[in-house]
Amino acid sequence: MGADPRFFPAQGPIALSAIAMAAGLSVDDGERLFTDVASLAEAGPTEIAFLEGRRMLPALRETRAGAVFVSAAAAKDVPAGCLALVTETPQLAYARVAALFHPSPAPVPGIHPTAVVAPDARIGEGTEIGPHAVIGAGAEIGAGCIIGPQAIVGAGCVLGPGSVLRAQASMEHCIAGARVVLAQGARVGNEGFGFITTSTGEHVTVPQVGRVILGDGVEIGANSCVDRGAGGDTVLGPGTRLDNLVQIGHNVKTGRGCVIVAQAGIAGSAELGDFVVIAAQAGLVGHITIGDKARVGAQAGVMNDVPAATDVVGSPAWPARETLRAFAKLRQLAATKRDGTSGGTP
Amino acid sequence: MGADPRFFPAQGPIALSAIAMAAGLSVDDGERLFTDVASLAEAGPTEIAFLEGRRMLPALRETRAGAVFVSAAAAKDVPAGCLALVTETPQLAYARVAALFHPSPAPVPGIHPTAVVAPDARIGEGTEIGPHAVIGAGAEIGAGCIIGPQAIVGAGCVLGPGSVLRAQASMEHCIAGARVVLAQGARVGNEGFGFITTSTGEHVTVPQVGRVILGDGVEIGANSCVDRGAGGDTVLGPGTRLDNLVQIGHNVKTGRGCVIVAQAGIAGSAELGDFVVIAAQAGLVGHITIGDKARVGAQAGVMNDVPAATDVVGSPAWPARETLRAFAKLRQLAATKRDGTSGGTP
Amino acid sequence: MGADPRFFPAQGPIALSAIAMAAGLSVDDGERLFTDVASLAEAGPTEIAFLEGRRMLPALRETRAGAVFVSAAAAKDVPAGCLALVTETPQLAYARVAALFHPSPAPVPGIHPTAVVAPDARIGEGTEIGPHAVIGAGAEIGAGCIIGPQAIVGAGCVLGPGSVLRAQASMEHCIAGARVVLAQGARVGNEGFGFITTSTGEHVTVPQVGRVILGDGVEIGANSCVDRGAGGDTVLGPGTRLDNLVQIGHNVKTGRGCVIVAQAGIAGSAELGDFVVIAAQAGLVGHITIGDKARVGAQAGVMNDVPAATDVVGSPAWPARETLRAFAKLRQLAATKRDGTSGGTP
Repeated sequence: MGADPRFFPAQGPIALSAIAMAAGLSVDDGERLFTDVASLAEAGPTEIAFLEGRRMLPALRETRAGAVFVSAAAAKDVPAGCLALVTETPQLAYARVAALFHPSPAPVPGIHPTAVVAPDARIGEGTEIGPHAVIGAGAEIGAGCIIGPQAIVGAGCVLGPGSVLRAQASMEHCIAGARVVLAQGARVGNEGFGFITTSTGEHVTVPQVGRVILGDGVEIGANSCVDRGAGGDTVLGPGTRLDNLVQIGHNVKTGRGCVIVAQAGIAGSAELGDFVVIAAQAGLVGHITIGDKARVGAQAGVMNDVPAATDVVGSPAWPARETLRAFAKLRQLAATKRDGTSGGTP
Repeated sequence: MGADPRFFPAQGPIALSAIAMAAGLSVDDGERLFTDVASLAEAGPTEIAFLEGRRMLPALRETRAGAVFVSAAAAKDVPAGCLALVTETPQLAYARVAALFHPSPAPVPGIHPTAVVAPDARIGEGTEIGPHAVIGAGAEIGAGCIIGPQAIVGAGCVLGPGSVLRAQASMEHCIAGARVVLAQGARVGNEGFGFITTSTGEHVTVPQVGRVILGDGVEIGANSCVDRGAGGDTVLGPGTRLDNLVQIGHNVKTGRGCVIVAQAGIAGSAELGDFVVIAAQAGLVGHITIGDKARVGAQAGVMNDVPAATDVVGSPAWPARETLRAFAKLRQLAATKRDGTSGGTP
Repeated sequence: MGADPRFFPAQGPIALSAIAMAAGLSVDDGERLFTDVASLAEAGPTEIAFLEGRRMLPALRETRAGAVFVSAAAAKDVPAGCLALVTETPQLAYARVAALFHPSPAPVPGIHPTAVVAPDARIGEGTEIGPHAVIGAGAEIGAGCIIGPQAIVGAGCVLGPGSVLRAQASMEHCIAGARVVLAQGARVGNEGFGFITTSTGEHVTVPQVGRVILGDGVEIGANSCVDRGAGGDTVLGPGTRLDNLVQIGHNVKTGRGCVIVAQAGIAGSAELGDFVVIAAQAGLVGHITIGDKARVGAQAGVMNDVPAATDVVGSPAWPARETLRAFAKLRQLAATKRDGTSGGTP
């Protein structure tokens, strides 16, 4: 059983040859037809599943799927009657084939009569502007975009081709590349939290006159916030992805392909290299640098620079190995009686 | 003094007999009239207050309320002229009576002329569709619902009777039961954070083709996010309540009556039993199981299964008693001088 | 190079005399004209920069700015040809002058034809109501306000003069002073998380019949949430500023000029004095009191009252000095071998 057709009608059926091509494989029986992807447990004889790792091996042995992407090591566990499609990256193959059956919805070109589009805005060919969307003066929207219901593209913004603003997303003071996605309620280009407090406690706003620059393929999750630069720009590098409810302060810069998981927050002017991973609910203070491929653990509180390819965890954050050792020590101490011996359940 | 009548005009006056019935009590002077509920400090002679616990005992002794819900133990502290309504659950009695004076606003049936409703959407009897709301193709909305201003019900969604979407809430790819509430800006049915990263660092989206299933009486707070399943469903069981700014990842499942407090986050495929409580700003990693009636403390970071009826706190989370012991030990150590003796303020 | 004129066209040019007046300085060559503010690195000969602290001293020595706000101590490092504007508060002077070149956008008076404004709402002179905004029955909006696209002012609300609701902000059950700002997607006046759980696990809503009171100059960040009182009011004192994604529970009260940074959360009925600072991702339990000028560190978890002018950090939060000592001790222990000696990289 594949996806609910009310929401996700599958394309197809699709021939195995096309499926194999998407997955980078070659097959014998290329004309065999498949109707959808599904999980090992739910797939039927015309559907395709996958196994990554070993956790789901029992499900593999009992699957009724017509075919399954597996590693060479797991191929022997594929049951009779199920076609083993052997690949080093089964989940990646699955993702690419799933996208054949369930491509992103194409834009339905045109401007909804309830949308408010500035006369001098430029809307690319084949772009869809949804109900109650608002497009500001001088905005430029590329070809093949979808501007969802009640989404906003502010005055002067540039949005590259193939981009999507989902329902109620807003973009202001922003220059965005191609294939950018803003999920529901994402806020891009807001005023940063910039003010000077006088000796009498009055907060005097520092005008925030920078922009947000989003590289090609940047995706921003639901209800996340990306503040514009105070002066100069906030920059998210190409392919960077933010999950939901993430906070990005003014003048933050990320490199390529960074991943920032739900509810993490990055304070002003922090700089991330390429392929940095910030796990959920982590926080970074401002004006620090995180090296390429560094990884910050969930709920970590990062107060200093992190070298490239380094994992840090904890609040305040330390290198992962030392932190785990410290926590083990603390656990051991907590189990120590007053006479110095240990006892009881630790 | 009760609520500000500009926002909350009280029904009534209401006879004591009806009040007692709502609270599950019997009274003598059933025809006496009351005009509203209020706090012990603010209630006047036609208003009803309550005392739960002992913290507000001084306020009880000085209250000018006409009547007060109290436990048997506190009845002797009710001042002369104030009617003691004795019950084992004073605050619950108060809640039920407050709802007599301040029932949830009823829908004003009809579709606002600025709303955009798909021709094949089915709208139940007595349902209100507010200004600029958007109802997608094939959506089914039950009777007696309120769809607030600028709220969105996506194509194919099902929303049970008596449900409420407040201002700018959005629901997509979702099947919801009766009496469901989405607060302002809540996001349900967003694409989950699902992708595979290739060896060159490219993030390849895994199509997210599952749904969100909301049980009867589920309530979701302002600006909270509930991602749809990657394949299969994200499920919130009947009576589950989410506070504001909560994140629920794809394929999370909760049982009945769970409570998830503000800014908590639950990663993909975690499963909660019935009546689990997740306190504010706590985080759960994916693919773990939390047993019935377990409780997770504020800011806890849960990385492993939690058995039923167990309290855990801390990040990483431990059983509460051990964590508190560890923290006490650490505090003691911090107060230890280099020569091994302790001194100074701990 | 100043700000991108697509988004932030500078006023001006502006004479040095006016600039000096805004900064509280006196100058000789008052007729000299300047065109914008910019950073030390980017400013050109008709632009003004500033130096605060010593970190950017190298940039000062190489700046091409026409003038620079500096402290007396740094004046000797201002390069030849650049005018040194000496002040004790260079960044504050910069902020005030930046606001000359980049004043907040003025309202464009009038009601957009797609806005839905209740017939009995009162709209002040010179106020702008944007596309698809919704103004409820009996609302009162002061003079010179901007109600952005798709923003909502609920029935009965009062909003003081010079206030701004940015795109998709919503305000309900709220009485707000002058110069209040709600950023994109901010939610004010939502129902608080108030319910009683019965012995069978049913959650019974306690009607939330209080309001939100916002003092003059309160600013609330993007996608932040401020719940209304359960009974009585939630109050944010004059000049209090909230960053993005902040959660304020029902009946919280703050004094004047508090600062609450991104993703922090304050539970119900907590009370903050004047000029309290709550750093990012910190959490406060309900019903506690935080004294004037106390400061709560990032990610702290505050479970008890905090005296005035006290800094606390950590979760659970302790006074800052003791917490740092405890962490140092833990780090030292983690580096201790089993035989009691220390060794290896700490």
